[in-house]
Formats: sequence, structure tokens, C-alpha cells
Amino acid sequence: MKKEVRAEIISIGDELLYGQIQDTNSHWISQELTAIGVRVVRRTTVGDNREAILNAFAAAEVNADIILMTGGLGPTQDDLTKPLLASYFECDLELVPEALESVKGFFEKRGRELTETNKLQAHLPTKCRYVPNEVGTAPGMWFEERGCVWMSMPGVPHEMKKLMQDFVLPKLREMFDLPVIFHQLIRTVGIGESWLSDLIKDWETALPEHVKLAYLPSLGEVKLRLTGFADDMESASSAVAGQLELLKPQIEKYIYAYGNVPLHEAVGILLKEKGQTVATAESCSGGYIAHLLTSIPGSSAYFNGGVIPYQNTLKESLLGVSATTLLTEGAVSERTVIEMAHGVREELNADYGLASSGIAGPSGGTAEKPVGTVWIACSYKGGVKTKLLKLTQDRSVNIHLTAISAMSLLRTCILGETE
Amino acid sequence: MKKEVRAEIISIGDELLYGQIQDTNSHWISQELTAIGVRVVRRTTVGDNREAILNAFAAAEVNADIILMTGGLGPTQDDLTKPLLASYFECDLELVPEALESVKGFFEKRGRELTETNKLQAHLPTKCRYVPNEVGTAPGMWFEERGCVWMSMPGVPHEMKKLMQDFVLPKLREMFDLPVIFHQLIRTVGIGESWLSDLIKDWETALPEHVKLAYLPSLGEVKLRLTGFADDMESASSAVAGQLELLKPQIEKYIYAYGNVPLHEAVGILLKEKGQTVATAESCSGGYIAHLLTSIPGSSAYFNGGVIPYQNTLKESLLGVSATTLLTEGAVSERTVIEMAHGVREELNADYGLASSGIAGPSGGTAEKPVGTVWIACSYKGGVKTKLLKLTQDRSVNIHLTAISAMSLLRTCILGETE
Repeated sequence: MKKEVRAEIISIGDELLYGQIQDTNSHWISQELTAIGVRVVRRTTVGDNREAILNAFAAAEVNADIILMTGGLGPTQDDLTKPLLASYFECDLELVPEALESVKGFFEKRGRELTETNKLQAHLPTKCRYVPNEVGTAPGMWFEERGCVWMSMPGVPHEMKKLMQDFVLPKLREMFDLPVIFHQLIRTVGIGESWLSDLIKDWETALPEHVKLAYLPSLGEVKLRLTGFADDMESASSAVAGQLELLKPQIEKYIYAYGNVPLHEAVGILLKEKGQTVATAESCSGGYIAHLLTSIPGSSAYFNGGVIPYQNTLKESLLGVSATTLLTEGAVSERTVIEMAHGVREELNADYGLASSGIAGPSGGTAEKPVGTVWIACSYKGGVKTKLLKLTQDRSVNIHLTAISAMSLLRTCILGETE
Repeated sequence: MKKEVRAEIISIGDELLYGQIQDTNSHWISQELTAIGVRVVRRTTVGDNREAILNAFAAAEVNADIILMTGGLGPTQDDLTKPLLASYFECDLELVPEALESVKGFFEKRGRELTETNKLQAHLPTKCRYVPNEVGTAPGMWFEERGCVWMSMPGVPHEMKKLMQDFVLPKLREMFDLPVIFHQLIRTVGIGESWLSDLIKDWETALPEHVKLAYLPSLGEVKLRLTGFADDMESASSAVAGQLELLKPQIEKYIYAYGNVPLHEAVGILLKEKGQTVATAESCSGGYIAHLLTSIPGSSAYFNGGVIPYQNTLKESLLGVSATTLLTEGAVSERTVIEMAHGVREELNADYGLASSGIAGPSGGTAEKPVGTVWIACSYKGGVKTKLLKLTQDRSVNIHLTAISAMSLLRTCILGETE
């Protein structure tokens, strides 16, 4: 086995210690480093305080080969990371023209004036390698000092993630001789964690030493992660592939994708393959299904559009739901959601019409239809599938679960499966 | 001004460093300590490793008066916190009958057999005060050693929270003469962090010792947090109020709310107050604006509904955008977005029609209209306001920023302000 490569993560900012912001960065970085075989040995969070930050630097270099920092890079007075890195590595701050260009460009794109404070962001420690931040103004800084690799990144999650994915992770893979780890993510929907684990119990117990299984449950779905350990990628991946072949037949109908493909993307891929389109009519999910579908690049190829008839009169005027249905069955009913699905499919001339109507809560429930009661329907040429969901008291959870169930229903319709 | 009471939080467990579990405990504890006037100076996360845990103890007692630990208390081999606390404070582990009773009771309640391993959980360091855990089997341990207060708690969130609320927080309040801290969150939109800081530089520099300012930027908006320190709540809050009065006139038009109120909720509150309604026509934002509005309970009072005309033909058929406009100006144009806003306002008979049309990316850009080019419009009785946005290369960021800018535009229309 190879030498262990050790990393420390340092998060900087009073807002973290005050509990004003949840530090999701350290968690995400831990996952990414673990995934490439780097051992995270410690995480430290310090405030915007000179002594505390310098102590964190000194403590980190004792145990770690790699030190990743986030935060404290803004242009404002309370951001200290950059000047302290310079003094810690005993070098000056110098204007980096390339960095200034990038900051200028960032503001020009937005048609905004560059202030003196902004310009300061282009002044970097002379000992660092400048790493461009394409989605923000605070540049990344890479150091190779005192026998460690140091990387300073902004605290804004999407800026940090882009720097990690585009630069840091590839660079670490190339610099260090990391143990070989192969991960295979298996994404399932329509079955709970405990049922899934019962279903595959025997297979799980029979897993060999060098293949590990992890359950990664999230709202409405369960991901399985198979991890293979070996001395070369070939054996690691084939060990995982072998186990996957044994697993598949047992849970095939619940698997919607492998790897980093969310359900709404998997459904989009299916539609694209079949050259089909979908339109949405959302009452209780309030546009969230459409948002998920359109969050995927190129979704205009299969998403025609959507209607959100939040007021009942709009269910009639925009989707042609009959007044009688609304009167006799109510807005939250199988009949209404079927007419919504048919209506949006015709109005927006799509192959599938996906509809939701329910009581998201926290108020609006009745004895007969309590909060969390949701009807979903998927209309297609020659038929319609519906489902009654009995969800929670939590509005955001209900909206989320409605969307996932609707996507899952759409998927079964596209595949012509029975749920 | 009272002496600052400083705390360090130590989270213990390999599962945290591997990124298998998000450490929500440290975040929650930070909020609770801040709320009672304890200053959190550092958070450290270490694995189930003897040397790392002992180092964390030693480092913590240097800076902190209070050291709170979570995790590493299970009955299994890899849980080291308890034996290490005993050796760190040079004392033995001894059976605590009261603790044994509690563990027994816990298992009897659940009709389960008490194993030898479970019994070990009742053996505690002789120097600790036993703190009963009523909702789990791992007891809390309170030490007063080496000039610090030490509290060890289980990592299971609801067990830790109960120990904190029932014992730790009251005990700390009684032991320490804590300063009173008052926080005021000021939420702004329509101005970037650096412009804001330039605008209020003089005011910021003139802030008194006992009032601190923090910038909390997030995508598309900037929050300011004013924190007042004093001996009683009265003086703390009035010190903050006084500074706020000086600040307000300088940035009034950018302030949309105080405290924990997101922009889409603040806009909803405005509409409710005025008894007005809004309808949305979203192209590039794909339903995200509607999703944000409907994520707020009771939004049906002011949100009529929305249309997502993702295909251009639907901009005509659903919203009455003229074919000529689409042909001559294109879908991403001021003229189109104005007709969308007017159209949705009439079709869905609302007081305001909010529309977006742009190139979210990553593809679909042209030299004239690059990725990130977005037009938004807000139509109202007797007029329309529009804005051209020049955003990023990142699709999800563009969708998010479009929604925030649209909400901000709607807000200025409701208030009858000029941007």
C-alpha cells in the first residue's frame, strides 16, 4: 500500500463561528479529497482574527501534506487571509496584471465600475501561483512552501467548487502518488433505505474485503456507493463492476442512473433519446418541477414549457379543467390532476403532460385531505397514470417530494413500465 | 465591558473527516453559545485517533475557558473520547451506579438485553461530574480541570441538543458573568459588497469598540450584521439601534428586510400589505421565480400563477407576444420581455407581471448576445420597468441571479421607486 497523503482543511470567517453560516465547504471538500484517496486528518474553523489564523497555519503544516483554505478573501477590511499568507511566507503583495484583467473583465461584463477596493483583489503574495477564479473576483492562490501544498480559495461555495474541480483536484492527482480508489454511484428511486437494504442483504454480506458499500439516503431517493480498493485502477474498477453485475438484477427497476446524474437529468436523457417532449402543470409544486427540468443545459430540446395555475380559476382558463370537476371533486383530486395533465399536454403540444395538485401546508388541510395530501398525474398519448402521495407537515419537504415522485412517475410512463 | 468568555468546539469522528456525515452539531452549538454571549474562538474536527484527540485537548485549553466536545462516545472500540479524557486528566474509569441504572432503564424501555459492552458506558472518569443523557446511552461528562470547563457529549444531534439545553447552557450562564450580545441583521439587494463597503466606509471606521460589523455576502445580495456588546440587553440593543439610525439614510434604498427574511418573502409581505398580486412569465429562469414565491406559506394570497413559455411559439400562444417582435428583435430582447410581462399580467389578471428572457448557458450565446445576457421586465398598471443583466457563464448562477434581480425589480415597482 502507498504512503498516506494527509490533508487539513481550514475555514476562515467570524460568520462561521457565530453560527450565521453553516460551513458546507469543509464537508464537500472532505468528500472530494476522500474520493481521490487523500486522508483528511483535521478540519479547523477560525475567525477573522490575525493570531488565530496564523496559529492555524502553523498547526496545519505539522501534520498535513496538503492544506486547503476557504474564506477571508473578500475585498473588505475584515478579510485577512491574503495579507497573513504573505507575512507567513515572508513575501510582499504585488499587483498581478493577469489578475487585474480578470477582475476588470468580471465587472465590465456586468457593466459596472471598478472601485479601488476591487483593484486590491489583484494584489497577490509574490510566492503564490495565481489561480484564476472565473466565477468571482477573489483569485485562488497556490503555494508550495515549507514542504506543504497550500491552496487558498474564496468561501463562496460555487466559486470554491469550480476552483477545486478545474484546478486543485486534478493538480493533486498529478502531484501525489495516491492509492487507487474506484467509486461507483448507483442511484435509485421509489424504494426506501431499509427496504432496499433488506432486499440486498445477502449480496451485501457476501461483499469481499476490498469492495465497500455505503448507503447515501437523501430526500425521496437512496444512492448506493460501491468503492473498490486496489493497486491499480483496472482491478479496482473490475472488482466493483463484478459486484454490480450481481446486484443489478435484484433492484433493476429502482435504478435510474449511475454516477453523478440527478433524477431530473436522467428523465431528460430518456426524453432526448426518444425524441419526446414534456410540459408541466404545477399547483402545489409551484414551478419546482419546471425549475429542476430547466436546470439542465439543453433542456429546451425536450421541455416545451409549463403552467402554474396557482388560482383555481386559472386551472380552467389556462388548462381547461372543467368547473364542475373543481366544484364537485375539488382542486386536490385525481380527476382535477388528470384534467390538468391532459390540458397542459394539449395546450403546450407535448408528448407528456405532468401535473401536481395538493396541500403543501403548513395550513390548508382538512380532516378528509390533511396537509401533505398530493395528487400527481402523467398524461400521454392513449393514457394517464396517477398517484396519491401522503407526505409530511413540512412545506418545503412536500414540494421536494412531490417533484421527485412526479419525475419518477414520468420516468415509468416513458419506459412504459408499471409502478 | 466584561471579560470575554471564550469557547472552543471539538467534533470527534472519522465519519466527519471522510465527509460521510455533515457536522451540523458545531454549527448549532456556535449559534447557541453566541446567543448567550460566549465567544466561539475555534472549531476543530478530528478523527478517531488517539494523538489527534489529545492534541486537540491541549490546543483548546490554551485559548478557551469552555471546551465543548461531541462524538467518540459510543461503546465500540473506535470510540476514544472517554478513555482519553481520563488519561488526560490523570484519573481512572469507575463504574457510576446511577449511570448504569440509566443505561439499564434505556434498554428495558425498549425490551432489549443489556450487553457487557453497553455496561461499559456506565464507567466514567473519576474526575468528571456525571450528566444523565435521557434520550441515549452515552452519558454527558462535565469536568472543571486546568482552569477550563470541559463538557463531553454524544455526537447524535438530538442527544447533544438535549444535554446542551437542559444542562450545559443554563450551567454556563450561572457560572460565567457573560456579556450581553445583541445581533441585528440588515439585508440588502442591488449593490455589491465592495460598493456597499465604499459607500459606508466612514460610518464603519467610526463604529465604537462595542459595536461590530460583519459583511455576509451571498449570491446576488449582501447581508450586514451589526453586533452590540454590553452588560445588559437594553444598552446592547440601543447601541446597535443608534448605529443603525446613522447607517440607514446612506443605504435605505438597498435595504429590503431586517432579520431572517429572504427577498422573496419580503416581496410577498409587501404585496400582502398592499393587497396586490403578481404573475410570472419565465423563460430563462424556468420556473425558479415562481418556486421561490410559492416556497412561502400563504403565498396563494398574492401569487396568481405563472407561465413558462420555454418554446417561442408558446410566448405567442400563451402570452400573446407578437410574432413580429420575436422575428425582428428575437426572444432575448427588451421588446419581447415587455410583451411577456404585459401578457402574463393580463392573462392571469394580476397587478404585476414579472418576466424573464435570456441565455442561461452554457451554450446558445452569440457575439451580440453572449451567455449570461438576460432581460427582465415588470409590468404594472400604467407602466413597465425593464433591466438588462450581464451575468456569468454558469447556468445555475444565472438562473439564481435572474430570480433575485427580478424580485428586486418587482420590489422597486411595488414601492414606486426608481432603481
